[in-house]
Amino acid sequence: MDKISLNIKDVLGTVSADQIKALDTKAAEALAKVDNGTGAGNDFLGWVNLPSSTPASLLDDIQATADALRRDCEVVVAIGIGGSYLGAKAVIEALNNAFDAYIPQPGTPKVLFAGQNIGEDYLYELTQYLADKKFGIIVISKSGTTTEPAIAFRMLKEQLEKQLGKAEASRRIVAITDKARGALRQLATEEGYKTFVIEDNVGGRFSVLTPVGLLPIAVAGYDIKALINGAIEMENATKDANDKNPAYLYAATRNALYQAGKKIEILVNYNPKLHYFGEWWKQLYGESEGKDHKGIFPAAVDNSTDLHSMGQWIQDGERTIFETVLSVAQQRHTLVIPSDDANLDGLNYIAGKRVDEVNKMAELGTRIAHVDGGVPNLQIVIPALTERYLGQLIYFFEKACGISGYMLDVNPFNQPGVEDYKRNMFALLEKPGYEEQTKAIKARL
Amino acid sequence: MDKISLNIKDVLGTVSADQIKALDTKAAEALAKVDNGTGAGNDFLGWVNLPSSTPASLLDDIQATADALRRDCEVVVAIGIGGSYLGAKAVIEALNNAFDAYIPQPGTPKVLFAGQNIGEDYLYELTQYLADKKFGIIVISKSGTTTEPAIAFRMLKEQLEKQLGKAEASRRIVAITDKARGALRQLATEEGYKTFVIEDNVGGRFSVLTPVGLLPIAVAGYDIKALINGAIEMENATKDANDKNPAYLYAATRNALYQAGKKIEILVNYNPKLHYFGEWWKQLYGESEGKDHKGIFPAAVDNSTDLHSMGQWIQDGERTIFETVLSVAQQRHTLVIPSDDANLDGLNYIAGKRVDEVNKMAELGTRIAHVDGGVPNLQIVIPALTERYLGQLIYFFEKACGISGYMLDVNPFNQPGVEDYKRNMFALLEKPGYEEQTKAIKARL
Repeated sequence: MDKISLNIKDVLGTVSADQIKALDTKAAEALAKVDNGTGAGNDFLGWVNLPSSTPASLLDDIQATADALRRDCEVVVAIGIGGSYLGAKAVIEALNNAFDAYIPQPGTPKVLFAGQNIGEDYLYELTQYLADKKFGIIVISKSGTTTEPAIAFRMLKEQLEKQLGKAEASRRIVAITDKARGALRQLATEEGYKTFVIEDNVGGRFSVLTPVGLLPIAVAGYDIKALINGAIEMENATKDANDKNPAYLYAATRNALYQAGKKIEILVNYNPKLHYFGEWWKQLYGESEGKDHKGIFPAAVDNSTDLHSMGQWIQDGERTIFETVLSVAQQRHTLVIPSDDANLDGLNYIAGKRVDEVNKMAELGTRIAHVDGGVPNLQIVIPALTERYLGQLIYFFEKACGISGYMLDVNPFNQPGVEDYKRNMFALLEKPGYEEQTKAIKARL
Repeated sequence: MDKISLNIKDVLGTVSADQIKALDTKAAEALAKVDNGTGAGNDFLGWVNLPSSTPASLLDDIQATADALRRDCEVVVAIGIGGSYLGAKAVIEALNNAFDAYIPQPGTPKVLFAGQNIGEDYLYELTQYLADKKFGIIVISKSGTTTEPAIAFRMLKEQLEKQLGKAEASRRIVAITDKARGALRQLATEEGYKTFVIEDNVGGRFSVLTPVGLLPIAVAGYDIKALINGAIEMENATKDANDKNPAYLYAATRNALYQAGKKIEILVNYNPKLHYFGEWWKQLYGESEGKDHKGIFPAAVDNSTDLHSMGQWIQDGERTIFETVLSVAQQRHTLVIPSDDANLDGLNYIAGKRVDEVNKMAELGTRIAHVDGGVPNLQIVIPALTERYLGQLIYFFEKACGISGYMLDVNPFNQPGVEDYKRNMFALLEKPGYEEQTKAIKARL
């Protein structure tokens, strides 16, 4: 098995193969828009050929930068929000030891995140934690003025300069930002930070395979070349307008389900390491499709944990839901359930089995129960949680998202709704330039 | 301010006060069913008067047991799933330092969780982590045979006995289980474990204020008496059938919204410490209401993080969503945004403000944007994240859930759908007693 694979047979009780097939023209047109740049938002298609066009020299530069941070720092704080946060977080969590936070590992800095919220206690506790740490900063912002990361960077930069002096602090700060314009670019030039570029044609939620995601992932100790190579494999596998192209098939299938009244999609894992992959996926699909008063509502569950939480609703609530399961074929470790003479817990019938065999039967048993209960099921089999297969999975979902958004007749690459809260927030905070809006919003309170 | 409070004014553009008022009879009947035990599932109403009827001696016993574990252990693993996991996790995360996992604290054991999944790598990595630790176990299971916790307990018990010998291991294991029956009760008696009782009339998702939640919370160092006292305050405040009763008002309002086509409720926080409170809430409402092909779909977001993820869908996707915001009035710490001479990031207009002031304007700005965009908004103001107010909040949501479920004409206290995957899993694993089901399910594969 050398690729992730998609299995849609368990949706066919809800939508027929013919119903999916009927979307072929629309799916092929959508794919062509993505590949040829002929659709709305086509100035944001830089991610399409990005894996295969990533220069080895860039990966080497990222790796060397990561190695320097790994050498000098006990903690590296990655500052960013949205796509400048979720991609790196998702890949690192998928590859990390589940108890990594509790295990000091000399030579591998802990990668923490900031600027992804405005929690006063979160930021306070972070600054306290860093007070006696050798730390570095990766600051990720196209403009340098997005409120959340800008606040965090202003504070942590000041702290780092106090702890180390300005010159040494500048050596431990890496900026990932616009190639020429913006506050962060200007600051980086003035302070002499090492920088990487956020290209104009790659939006935040499609940026994990750029330095935005790659640098934190490399700092955490993971193989970014393998990640990119996996993405290249999937780039090559998602070009054709037919069912052999898993991105095409996923996009067509979920659109058929949506037309059939399935309004909620849950991304399901049976491995808690994939929790943040679900969060990354929710941004990718929610932000790409949730517009013009339409779009599938993306949610995620971690099973079997959430079978004892959301499981009841999924099994027997409104029949407006379908699920896409991430199934990891091979686990990293082996753990066998021991036999027990007393057998009070009655588990001896599974003694000698690997824990994962039980997990797989929970997964299969759930699939059967959900399909029987009216929840169509798509399954994505991932050979193992490695950089290579995660690279495949990321690109697969990105490509399918572009196709799917065009099939829905939206621009998959904008996010106008994200501005609405910002505009109000600036007005409420009396930001210079928002005088009229300030007056208007205060009159409403 | 001495209580959490509910504000529904920002739903009134979607449903009118009259529409909510029209549900008064139904809401009053539902409340009476909860308080008088006259509805379906009335053998599971032990939680209703639980806070005020919790004996001080029980709390003292829990505290003494926690103190012993705190004295003897660096790590305490709480083994449980669903309601035997989420309540304790939610309260501990709400009260913990955000970076607690990274900060060794002599005298306060780390509380880890197991048996809430069947992840082979998770369990393997946990056993590796514990190999050189002084650890204890709290095992929570009514029957002692629920698959997920039973597997984890079988393995960790064996490990602890190997590390310490059977006698000392037994002193570091506490079982929370049925008062008389079941595998875990029998084992606890044989091995001489300290035990606490799961009463027959309190279901898992309503059990956080019993020893199930209280013991792990006390081990983590938090004040369980204050938690119970807060719950008593809310028990007293949720008895009357009118709008002064916030549980009554919340139940009536969300049912009016559901009738008006709002099919998805998101619980929103602006403080990442409340993430797992959202998970607890999802179980409480999803498992209580998601049945008979109806029920609001519960989801949760952590803002402002998720404004850069789910925010676009919420602002502009299908208009089938409403939100309930948890707003924490006072933060624990104070952090002021510094001024900066260069002001390249343009943040000097908020220099001198507390970070939380900006967060509050993000919250207010978002509320206005969402309401303008067609997303009704309920707001729950929590004076501060303390044990007392968390106790209030927990009881508030429990009481409202009972009322809301009866208003929906379901039994809020069963979860028949959770059995479906288990039955299939047992058949697939060839559990003794499932021979017929095994034959049937294998014929389908």
